[in-house]
Amino acid sequence: MMTHAIDLSTQPIQPLPKEINLNQEKVSLGYKLFNDKRLSKDNTISCATCHDLSSGGADKTQFSRGINNALGGRNSPTVYNSGLNFRQLWDGRARDLFTQVGGALTNAKVMGSTWDEVIKKLSKNEAYQESFSRIYGTDVTEEAIRDAVAEFEKSLITVDSPFDRYLYGDENAISEREKRGYKLFVSYGCSSCHQGRNVGGNMFQRFGVLKDIRLRKGGNEGDLGRFKVTSDEEDKYVFRVPSLRLVVITPPYFHDGSVETLEGAVDVMIEFQLGRKVPEKDRDDIIAFLRSLVGKHKLLNHD
Amino acid sequence: MMTHAIDLSTQPIQPLPKEINLNQEKVSLGYKLFNDKRLSKDNTISCATCHDLSSGGADKTQFSRGINNALGGRNSPTVYNSGLNFRQLWDGRARDLFTQVGGALTNAKVMGSTWDEVIKKLSKNEAYQESFSRIYGTDVTEEAIRDAVAEFEKSLITVDSPFDRYLYGDENAISEREKRGYKLFVSYGCSSCHQGRNVGGNMFQRFGVLKDIRLRKGGNEGDLGRFKVTSDEEDKYVFRVPSLRLVVITPPYFHDGSVETLEGAVDVMIEFQLGRKVPEKDRDDIIAFLRSLVGKHKLLNHD
Repeated sequence: MMTHAIDLSTQPIQPLPKEINLNQEKVSLGYKLFNDKRLSKDNTISCATCHDLSSGGADKTQFSRGINNALGGRNSPTVYNSGLNFRQLWDGRARDLFTQVGGALTNAKVMGSTWDEVIKKLSKNEAYQESFSRIYGTDVTEEAIRDAVAEFEKSLITVDSPFDRYLYGDENAISEREKRGYKLFVSYGCSSCHQGRNVGGNMFQRFGVLKDIRLRKGGNEGDLGRFKVTSDEEDKYVFRVPSLRLVVITPPYFHDGSVETLEGAVDVMIEFQLGRKVPEKDRDDIIAFLRSLVGKHKLLNHD
Repeated sequence: MMTHAIDLSTQPIQPLPKEINLNQEKVSLGYKLFNDKRLSKDNTISCATCHDLSSGGADKTQFSRGINNALGGRNSPTVYNSGLNFRQLWDGRARDLFTQVGGALTNAKVMGSTWDEVIKKLSKNEAYQESFSRIYGTDVTEEAIRDAVAEFEKSLITVDSPFDRYLYGDENAISEREKRGYKLFVSYGCSSCHQGRNVGGNMFQRFGVLKDIRLRKGGNEGDLGRFKVTSDEEDKYVFRVPSLRLVVITPPYFHDGSVETLEGAVDVMIEFQLGRKVPEKDRDDIIAFLRSLVGKHKLLNHD
C-alpha cells in the first residue's frame, strides 16, 4: 500500500468517525422500533418504509407515501450518517434525531399516530416491556422510544469509503480520476457548502445563491423552505445543505425530488449556486469523486 | 388506492417473488459467514467487502480490491436478487450461487484462501461447530459453507418496489413519468434482453449487437467475456445480461466499470445494442422508470 501524508486540518472534507460510542442495547431496541409498523396509526408504515437500509437509507421515489397512501411534500433524505447533521429535516426544524422521531410519528402524512396509541400497542408486547424495563427502568414511554430510535440511527455511520481511506493515507484508495474530481469539487466551490465529515449537513444555505431559483424549470418553487419555520424573509428558499456522502445512491435529487439524475443535479448546483456552467468532463469527474464517498455500514456488514 | 388490472403474462417484466421458501437457520448461518473475514487468507476480506448490503449489494468502485490490495478485473455485481440469475458472474462461468461462493474464496485476487485453511479456522469457533452440527449434522465442511452462504444470498430479494406494486395493480405506485419511461424502455427494445423478474440476468448477449463495441471509447475491450470460458469465437464480447433491478444505485457501469453515470450507460446501450441515439428527455424518462425498480430487502428492513 502506497501511503502519503495528508494534513486533515487543511482539507474541506473530514473522514467519518470509525467508531461511535453507543449503548448497544439501546441500538438493538432502536433497530426493532425502527422496523416496527405499529408506530403508525394503521400499522402499515415503519421508519424503514421511507428509510430503506438496503439501498442507502432513503426510498427512491420523489415523495414518500405515508398512511392512507398520503403523499409527502419533500424527498426523503438518507438516515445513514444523519446523526452527524447539525439539524434534522430539509428545513432544519428538528434540532436532533430525538426530536425528529416524534415529528414523523405524529405527522398525518407519515405515520399519523399519537404517542398514546403507540405506547398502548407496544406495551402489549412482553419482549418490549422487558427491554424498556431493563434498559430504561421504565414502562414503554415516549421518551424511551425516541431515545432508542435515535441511538440506533446514530449507529448508521458508513465507514471505510475509498475517499476516507485516501484521507487516512492510502494513496491508491481512489483513482486518478477520483482525485481529479475532488480537486474540481473544491475548485468549483462545491466544498464551500458541502464540507466537513458529512460533506454537507452542517449549515443552511439559499437554493439559488447566484441565480434566482425561480428561473429553474421543473422544480417546486412553492416550497419556501426554512421561511415556513422562521417567517423571516431572509429564509425564503433556504434549506439545510444535504450531506453528499451517499448522494450517488439516493436519487432523485433536491428537497423536491425534482431532478432524476446526478448529472442534472450537479448541473443545477453549479449554475444556480456557483453561477457557472460545468463542462461534461469536469462534471463526470466530480461524480466519480462523489462515488468514492460511499462507505459501508458496519452493523449490517458486521465483522 | 386506484387499481387497474394488468395481465402479467403480456408484460416483459414480472414482479419479484414476495416470499421465498428458505431454511431460516441456514439463512442466519449464511449471513454470519457472508460477513466473516476469516473466509479470506489474511482475514481482511469478507463477501460483504465487495457486496455491501447497506448500499445496494455491490461496492462503488470500478474494480474491487481483494487480499493484498489485489485489483480485480471486473466490476462487482450486486448480490441482491442474484439467486434469480440463470448463471452467476459476468461471464456466467458459475452455474449457481453454491458454485460461485467457492470461486471467490479461492480466487487469488479476491479471498486467496483454500478450503482447508478456512475449515480449520472456522472449526476453532464453538458457535460455528454447534450451528453446523445442528443444521447440517456435520463438522464445518466446504459443502455446508457453500450451502449456507448460498441460502442466505437467496434471501436477498428486494420486494415492494414501486414498479412491482404497479404490476400488481396499484395504478398510483409509479408516476406518469415513470410509466412513460417504461413504455420507452419497451419500445426502444431494452426489454428484449432486460426482461423477466430480474429485468435481466436470464440470458447471454453480445456487448455490441448493432455496433462493434471496439469503437467505444474508454472501455476495456481486452475483456473477451464468455470467450474465455468456452473458447468459442461466437462468444467474444458476450456477457450475461445484468439485472437492472438495482441499477440506479450501483454505479459505475458495465463489466469493466468503465462508465460513471447511468445516463452514460443508457447512451452506450442504445447506441451499441440498439443502433440508435436516444434524446435526452427519453433517456431521463427511462432512468425515472429504472428508479421505480428499486425494492427493499425484508431481512434488513424486517417486520
